[in-house]
Amino acid sequence: MSTLYHRIAEHYRGAIQAGALRSGDRFPSVRELMRRHEVSLSTALQACRRLEDDGLLEARARSGYFVRHPRRAALPPASEAAPRAIDAAAYVGISEHISGILARGQRHAVELNLALAVAPPAMYPAEALARAMQRRLRLAPQVLTTMTRRHGHPLLRAALARRALERGVAAAPEQIVVTQGCTEAMNLALRVVTQPGDTVAVESPTFYGLLQIVEALGLRAIELPTSPKTGLSLEALAFALDQRTAIRAVVVQPTLHNPLGCTMPDERKAELVALCAAHGVALIEDDIYGEMTAQPARPLKAWDQDGGVIHCNSLNKLLAPGLRLGWMLAGRWQARVEMLKYTQSRFPEELPQSVVAEYVDSPAYDRHRRRLAEQLRVHRDAYADLVAAHFPSGTRVTLPDGGLLLWLQLPDGASGDRLFAAALERGIKIAPGSMFSTGARFDGFVRLGVGRPPDDTLAAALRTLGTLV
Amino acid sequence: MSTLYHRIAEHYRGAIQAGALRSGDRFPSVRELMRRHEVSLSTALQACRRLEDDGLLEARARSGYFVRHPRRAALPPASEAAPRAIDAAAYVGISEHISGILARGQRHAVELNLALAVAPPAMYPAEALARAMQRRLRLAPQVLTTMTRRHGHPLLRAALARRALERGVAAAPEQIVVTQGCTEAMNLALRVVTQPGDTVAVESPTFYGLLQIVEALGLRAIELPTSPKTGLSLEALAFALDQRTAIRAVVVQPTLHNPLGCTMPDERKAELVALCAAHGVALIEDDIYGEMTAQPARPLKAWDQDGGVIHCNSLNKLLAPGLRLGWMLAGRWQARVEMLKYTQSRFPEELPQSVVAEYVDSPAYDRHRRRLAEQLRVHRDAYADLVAAHFPSGTRVTLPDGGLLLWLQLPDGASGDRLFAAALERGIKIAPGSMFSTGARFDGFVRLGVGRPPDDTLAAALRTLGTLV
Repeated sequence: MSTLYHRIAEHYRGAIQAGALRSGDRFPSVRELMRRHEVSLSTALQACRRLEDDGLLEARARSGYFVRHPRRAALPPASEAAPRAIDAAAYVGISEHISGILARGQRHAVELNLALAVAPPAMYPAEALARAMQRRLRLAPQVLTTMTRRHGHPLLRAALARRALERGVAAAPEQIVVTQGCTEAMNLALRVVTQPGDTVAVESPTFYGLLQIVEALGLRAIELPTSPKTGLSLEALAFALDQRTAIRAVVVQPTLHNPLGCTMPDERKAELVALCAAHGVALIEDDIYGEMTAQPARPLKAWDQDGGVIHCNSLNKLLAPGLRLGWMLAGRWQARVEMLKYTQSRFPEELPQSVVAEYVDSPAYDRHRRRLAEQLRVHRDAYADLVAAHFPSGTRVTLPDGGLLLWLQLPDGASGDRLFAAALERGIKIAPGSMFSTGARFDGFVRLGVGRPPDDTLAAALRTLGTLV
Repeated sequence: MSTLYHRIAEHYRGAIQAGALRSGDRFPSVRELMRRHEVSLSTALQACRRLEDDGLLEARARSGYFVRHPRRAALPPASEAAPRAIDAAAYVGISEHISGILARGQRHAVELNLALAVAPPAMYPAEALARAMQRRLRLAPQVLTTMTRRHGHPLLRAALARRALERGVAAAPEQIVVTQGCTEAMNLALRVVTQPGDTVAVESPTFYGLLQIVEALGLRAIELPTSPKTGLSLEALAFALDQRTAIRAVVVQPTLHNPLGCTMPDERKAELVALCAAHGVALIEDDIYGEMTAQPARPLKAWDQDGGVIHCNSLNKLLAPGLRLGWMLAGRWQARVEMLKYTQSRFPEELPQSVVAEYVDSPAYDRHRRRLAEQLRVHRDAYADLVAAHFPSGTRVTLPDGGLLLWLQLPDGASGDRLFAAALERGIKIAPGSMFSTGARFDGFVRLGVGRPPDDTLAAALRTLGTLV
């Protein structure tokens, strides 16, 4: 792996770690790197991107690269999960537990909601979308009174197929099924490959919404150890697949995992797809944060050879939380997913689809995506700084390469559930770790949403949380 | 039952049948009836409404009542179903059959689609809704980028609760769960009261969408005889409930049944609710056509005493087929339906809800409802005339008191499936009777949608269909 770009990146990594280049310093331009090291444009760019991916550089629009504050040194990352015995738990009650937490959050007057995995409305292109929608309504008001068409608006399916192609997924527009958010896509994916009573493998911790679906569909699940750095343990999965237990599907969030924030390295993604294909097991991918890294990550679907990967996605987190536009590529289960979707909720309304199709197909989409990613990076850094400043020693945090979430490990003996309850009394809502697994294994953790721009109120809230811990 | 208004109605029924009053004649005004028979306003009105309900009079806006063409005499109604042995069929394959028919319909170029149970876009208030939506987008564009709220927009839930109250259903706005069309509501209703493998009772014939849901959820169903005049046979249901078979739910479309068109008389609705309550069996009501009679019918939910009725509804057929706005009242299963809905697809988008809330709360809603009902009555009459003129003798038709559908019984030996295939070759799509039951019991039937305004093309198509039969 010691390629030319790699050596150049290592050279500057050392310079940054030694303090020769300090936080905020302007990094040599790509042209300068080409000259200094006598390398091609492509090599110089790769070196910069490698450092950017590692969190040591940041790109600023029209100004080049700058050295980033090496924040991770201040707070150690959340610890690796200890492997545990593999047995499929029937998910009876987890949904009640999660609903209970959600309901308690709703009963209290909340001044500051740090439990949300979404950015505030102003960080999305509301005006541009609204203007486009008004124009369509003037031109064709009958879109509101015309029956919706098969599995989505043709323009949106085409636009999404083009975007998928950029990320390494070759899909025909007709293969895209538009859904009511990623949630409906995940429901359909699980329904199409399982029967009630079947067992699926999930990450641990994992998004509570998945646990609720698993329970609601009457499934059993095996929770597999998942690293805050590299994601699902393939070793544990291989072991589980070799057991007698018939695993019908593996469900993962390979990019910017919720709540851990980790992204599987490409080689592990490829390995995961191959492993599931070899065992003939369906691989369900929740890619909702897949485009929220600095460079959009490749989804598992990009390595899919035989249609064994079901790719679920949404524009909810990235573009328009008010529109509930999700979509999926169902691989070899396409026909049956189409039938189930029709049976479950027919076809989605067309007006928002046509508006979003136009936007997704325009340069404004990439501009918005980059701006949002950069804003959220600033948020994550600021939140992590505040945690470092106000939480007691022993606190660990996983600072992801993108997205909306921080995963905090509290010092020994502190409980996420107790912090949740105490914070709620003070008008602050967080997501306790117990929501993300059936066991009590993550009670020492909490998830923070970083969508809200940092300000004095936030600083005061994190001080309060730190004191409560 | 021989009340005063009843005797007056009988008097005029005789006059019409004897030809003393002929089709198109102006009927005595209410004031005139009061004078002639020395009765109160209320009695005179009741007599007129009785005759109107029986299809002998029609009300014209600002002109009073007129005698209607007694069309039913020309075509005998579809025959009563023969009772059959009660056994729960596992619905394996019906969804494939239905999907197969739907797919064949999609592959062919269709010039005239008589399989739709929806009116064309121009018959709904597209412009008014579009203007309201444009206004909201100007005032509050961030509705597109704001997370959606718990189980629907508060204004829509309040507006729907007020409308339900007018129909005899007392419901708090918080009890209304907004869904992705009636289809999602029916899915949730069945999921909340059954486990896979359970048995439910359905009407026979019944809407094919219900059969698909039953199969997709892994349920078994007992099809109960259903009269084209009075709906579900309560005698058969009582018998089935007394058997050892555990029936978890009874699913009915009590008003303007699809495909039969029948509406259960109020006393039978009350009896059905009481019967299910006595047996502790959930009663699921699909009320999607409930407001499409001349006078909005009372839903089963109006008789519900103990929360045992789950009411499912939609604004899809009545107001805006492009918006997919459904809703439900889940009775004693409310909390669990809310949890399942959240798990299945989260909360619906708010912009269309706020626009529709405003419209439903305005006088425009009732004006639209009445106009649509009257237009569809004219359509039904015209379609039935064309069937009478062009179909061979032995054809029977059920002419409903409202809604979008005619149910045709073909002469002995003719097959709906064959007619479907032959018509498709000629660019005409109809819904064959075989879609509406697991058995081959309704192969001699077809369902016609009457949304499309009658014209020469339609006349030619019905002539073609008649020839094919």
